[in-house]
Amino acid sequence: MKNKPESSEAPFAYEGLDRVIHERARLSILTSLLTHPKGLSFVDLKQLCALTDGNLSRHLSVLEKSGLVESLKGHDRNRPLTTSRITPEGRSRYLEYLSTLEQVVRDATGQKRSAQARDLAPGKA
Amino acid sequence: MKNKPESSEAPFAYEGLDRVIHERARLSILTSLLTHPKGLSFVDLKQLCALTDGNLSRHLSVLEKSGLVESLKGHDRNRPLTTSRITPEGRSRYLEYLSTLEQVVRDATGQKRSAQARDLAPGKA
Repeated sequence: MKNKPESSEAPFAYEGLDRVIHERARLSILTSLLTHPKGLSFVDLKQLCALTDGNLSRHLSVLEKSGLVESLKGHDRNRPLTTSRITPEGRSRYLEYLSTLEQVVRDATGQKRSAQARDLAPGKA
Repeated sequence: MKNKPESSEAPFAYEGLDRVIHERARLSILTSLLTHPKGLSFVDLKQLCALTDGNLSRHLSVLEKSGLVESLKGHDRNRPLTTSRITPEGRSRYLEYLSTLEQVVRDATGQKRSAQARDLAPGKA
């Protein structure tokens, strides 16, 4: 329902940019987790994404409530260790999101080349 | 100041995802304007981005205050017509933003391929 196909009349609507995923901190977290499918500890995520404890907690909680991330309680040298992992649904929704992101890049890159060409042209305004 | 280079310790921080540009409606508007450097009328932008009058006004105003978009008052068949255009600063900040977006796609696409390979493998969990 949410990801209706891009209308040919609204080619720049980018409906596929799922708001849960598009937020910058959550995009950081999900990209980290996608590329580390075994999961990451809170400390690792904090460092990879350059987030504060509070921000990481808050955004992980949104991602868990949306079913995109799950947290696994385990142990490391007898100390409790919680690991976050992307869920199969999270991976599938991320990949859907990614296809729209790639469309943005394609749309903009066509223009980027002409923009660069203009920058090189003499007498630019 | 704002776009400090990606730290090698925080490879997923994506600091270059400028919040003014990253918001979905504003990303739609700016991509439309980048690809239409002569400018677009309010009505055209509304249709290309599938935005309501209220949302388009609100986001155009944010983009103008940030210096990324300018509005030009003109006439079309004796009726006043306002056109929005991306500014040189807007184009330059958009292209900077775009390079980080491309990095996200590159980071995720490496994994996307392995994810798809796993999907094709027998006995996936």
